Amino acid sequence: MQFNINSALQILERTPGVVETMLENLPDEWIMNNEGGDSWSAYDVVGHYIHGEKTDWIPRMQIILSDNKEKQFAPFDRFAQFSDNKGKSLGELIAEFKKSRNENLQYLKSIRFSDELLNRTGIHPKFGSVTLKQLLSTWVVHDLTHIYQISRVMAKQYESEVGPWKEFLGVLNDR
Amino acid sequence: MQFNINSALQILERTPGVVETMLENLPDEWIMNNEGGDSWSAYDVVGHYIHGEKTDWIPRMQIILSDNKEKQFAPFDRFAQFSDNKGKSLGELIAEFKKSRNENLQYLKSIRFSDELLNRTGIHPKFGSVTLKQLLSTWVVHDLTHIYQISRVMAKQYESEVGPWKEFLGVLNDR
Repeated sequence: MQFNINSALQILERTPGVVETMLENLPDEWIMNNEGGDSWSAYDVVGHYIHGEKTDWIPRMQIILSDNKEKQFAPFDRFAQFSDNKGKSLGELIAEFKKSRNENLQYLKSIRFSDELLNRTGIHPKFGSVTLKQLLSTWVVHDLTHIYQISRVMAKQYESEVGPWKEFLGVLNDR
Repeated sequence: MQFNINSALQILERTPGVVETMLENLPDEWIMNNEGGDSWSAYDVVGHYIHGEKTDWIPRMQIILSDNKEKQFAPFDRFAQFSDNKGKSLGELIAEFKKSRNENLQYLKSIRFSDELLNRTGIHPKFGSVTLKQLLSTWVVHDLTHIYQISRVMAKQYESEVGPWKEFLGVLNDR
């Protein structure tokens, strides 16, 4: 499947609703537990989505599209949600994710995408030159990878309860 | 986290809505492609959920709770969806999943669960003796494992589009 802006929008538009449907009104035992060690809970993942909306996807797109010679992206802080969200409820985080995503979708829809535009580049701190098309594709896959993570983290809360079925449930053996 | 019927119902009640929010109105390129070979598409997974509602979870629970001496479960057909669903749209399958799940939730809510009841056993074709509590826990984890699978299958459709970011996106390297 090749990237096009419409197929990307089909996923980006629905992710906050998917996260809300998965998590709204669940008690803390489903949303605040993690996979052990310094892994993330479902709550942490929602905070990570918000930080991406504010500092990653659109700011990097704007660097690519700017007239500046300097196209270097700022590094993304994968742990910002731990300091940003102290004291906020999951409901508040989901509302914030929805609002930020909506603003970003409005911006995306204001752009006339062309092959020329999608092939413009910025400089990633690790990978070097990357295209706008790769950045936007990554945004889509990033949405899905964290739905993947949320479902795995939740599944693991029942790991000891499934008895011998664990063998059939691949999710319990992934990390 | 230990199994209890309320925490299990919190997940079982929402899964059809999660699947609907993830997939409704998507074009075939997102829902009909798989991970290659004989792996499953998102569409196939929805058919698999329906087959589980009809032949797996509640029928096995009823074997455990019956007065019959014979407690052997029928083997579950993991490929039934390929013959059952020919010609049906994804929207039809989601509606069927919702209806079947609702009926099964009504039945579950009609039962007075006690520790004695949850520890009753049936005979799994491979594992031998398993408890009702393990069966119901597995139903919950099974719901989550297939949300996990759907998000992975969809993510992989953009695998070649993300360029060097593939390295950061674990979902693209799982199977």
